[in-house]
Amino acid sequence: MAEAETPRRALAAAVKAGDRRALAQAITLVESTRPDHRLAAEALMDDLLAEGGRSIRLGVSGPPGVGKSTLIERLGLYLVGLGRRVAVLAVDPSSRLGGGSILGDKTRMEELAKHAHAFIRPSPTGETLGGVARRTREALTLVEAAGFDVVVVETVGVGQSETDVAEMTDLFLLLVQPGAGDDLQGMKRGIVELADLVAVTKADGETRAAAARAAGDYAHALRCLRPRNPGWTPEVIQCSGQTGAGIAELWGAVLRFEAAQKATGALAERRAGQAKAWLWRELSDGLMDLLRAEPEVARRLGALEGEVAAGRMSPAAAARRLIEAFLGR
Amino acid sequence: MAEAETPRRALAAAVKAGDRRALAQAITLVESTRPDHRLAAEALMDDLLAEGGRSIRLGVSGPPGVGKSTLIERLGLYLVGLGRRVAVLAVDPSSRLGGGSILGDKTRMEELAKHAHAFIRPSPTGETLGGVARRTREALTLVEAAGFDVVVVETVGVGQSETDVAEMTDLFLLLVQPGAGDDLQGMKRGIVELADLVAVTKADGETRAAAARAAGDYAHALRCLRPRNPGWTPEVIQCSGQTGAGIAELWGAVLRFEAAQKATGALAERRAGQAKAWLWRELSDGLMDLLRAEPEVARRLGALEGEVAAGRMSPAAAARRLIEAFLGR
Repeated sequence: MAEAETPRRALAAAVKAGDRRALAQAITLVESTRPDHRLAAEALMDDLLAEGGRSIRLGVSGPPGVGKSTLIERLGLYLVGLGRRVAVLAVDPSSRLGGGSILGDKTRMEELAKHAHAFIRPSPTGETLGGVARRTREALTLVEAAGFDVVVVETVGVGQSETDVAEMTDLFLLLVQPGAGDDLQGMKRGIVELADLVAVTKADGETRAAAARAAGDYAHALRCLRPRNPGWTPEVIQCSGQTGAGIAELWGAVLRFEAAQKATGALAERRAGQAKAWLWRELSDGLMDLLRAEPEVARRLGALEGEVAAGRMSPAAAARRLIEAFLGR
Repeated sequence: MAEAETPRRALAAAVKAGDRRALAQAITLVESTRPDHRLAAEALMDDLLAEGGRSIRLGVSGPPGVGKSTLIERLGLYLVGLGRRVAVLAVDPSSRLGGGSILGDKTRMEELAKHAHAFIRPSPTGETLGGVARRTREALTLVEAAGFDVVVVETVGVGQSETDVAEMTDLFLLLVQPGAGDDLQGMKRGIVELADLVAVTKADGETRAAAARAAGDYAHALRCLRPRNPGWTPEVIQCSGQTGAGIAELWGAVLRFEAAQKATGALAERRAGQAKAWLWRELSDGLMDLLRAEPEVARRLGALEGEVAAGRMSPAAAARRLIEAFLGR
């Protein structure tokens, strides 16, 4: 182990010093599924954990076509202009579910990506759905350790991904577009309930009036929902990624939310609860990984799955046999 | 073990003979979390598995106030009138999440409950959310073994419960009520996507015209969604639990769906896939149950959770230690 320690320590130090290449390498390490990489990644995470937790963690979601990239880039440029350091991470299960990734598109946020105080990382690929969220959480700690003080975690909203993103961030920003009647219809209700802030995009040109109407509709709808955070009613902001209108106001709302949540202790509580929930997920995922890797389980799995699929054995009985094979009992 | 075999065999035989008291006792056994009961339940399930699979499995969901009980009772009475044997099971996580259960209400479906060819079982209580679905799946096999040839699994739609119900049934029937504009707004979109059939309730009296409009709106909305089953476009039926209007038509649609799915082999495929998914869930839940029960894990859990919540240890590192404690490595 002694030899392995040095590069990891050096990598941790380089990440802390804000070395972007080291940061990219560290994220690649935590995204790896190789068992030796996982061990090294955990040690790295423990080295850097104390450096994490210092950013504002902003979750962003919204339906395709809402203008998510444009808005995030505009917000990012505004923030680096204020002297902030901005990282953008993506949770995008669609990159795995067949076809190209929306978020993995390398030409996205070109201007922001070039900025010295911005760091953009596309979604990891090739893993299970839950795995993406696990590794993005670790990447979040890494970019914090590297000194990024605003972290945007974005998702296209496939499957569980919005819940995953809400469970790793301080504030969940939902982007919607003008045409509220149709929008509210197409929206998963649960997602609106997750929102701490709603931004109506495209508040510019011909769609400005429609955006104002949509903002009114959403403000009304949000008042009908039980507030997710005591002492905070989700605000609705109109903004434009094209013109930059409303971006400063949006950021102001983020800061107000963060300050209010800090003052009441709700932020610390939210993060502690998130960390605990993450522990349980790591436990469950970790155990299942080990089970699948056990040769005796692998040897028997196909036959037992076949018996279950054919209705000749109950799933509970097959599960018990596989668990016994795993535990060597 | 020899002594324990006899009552279980006797119980299995009594269930197969259609003895309602034995059936109720068998369901209570599979709902128990006691390890010795779990073992007995698994053995019972394996005895009866070959008798299962012979019913039409109908999942039913809809928002509170839609008239679910009234409609299910009316459908049930129609079916027993045709000589069918009807069982109604409930997946109702709300019974656990504080306050009374909507589905557990004993005065529900009074007329159907009295019928010799009907069996109504409220939701199990006192268990985890996922546990309810696990045990309801087993209860489904038991009522099939007891000769019920239509099984209705209903849910109020809390959390994951609709997905759970869709994953244990052949056909997912979504109930909606007149006032489609508002309805579609309040609907979780993912739930509409699960539907194989949609029934607009309250197609009677003053709400008859509104029900017809809602049916048109839903039919339009469903045409915009990608069909869940190749070769089947979800139908929208107007019906009334009060007058019985549309009930025969609804059942006709169920039979058409079942026949179409059988002809293409899609039904067998769906059930085999469901059984496999259930196996994986049993594996994961079973492993986590064993982990939690391990004294060494219980001893260390509080401290490690505290470290993780305080940000002093990474969830992955804490999970690894707990897994090592569990596996004695």
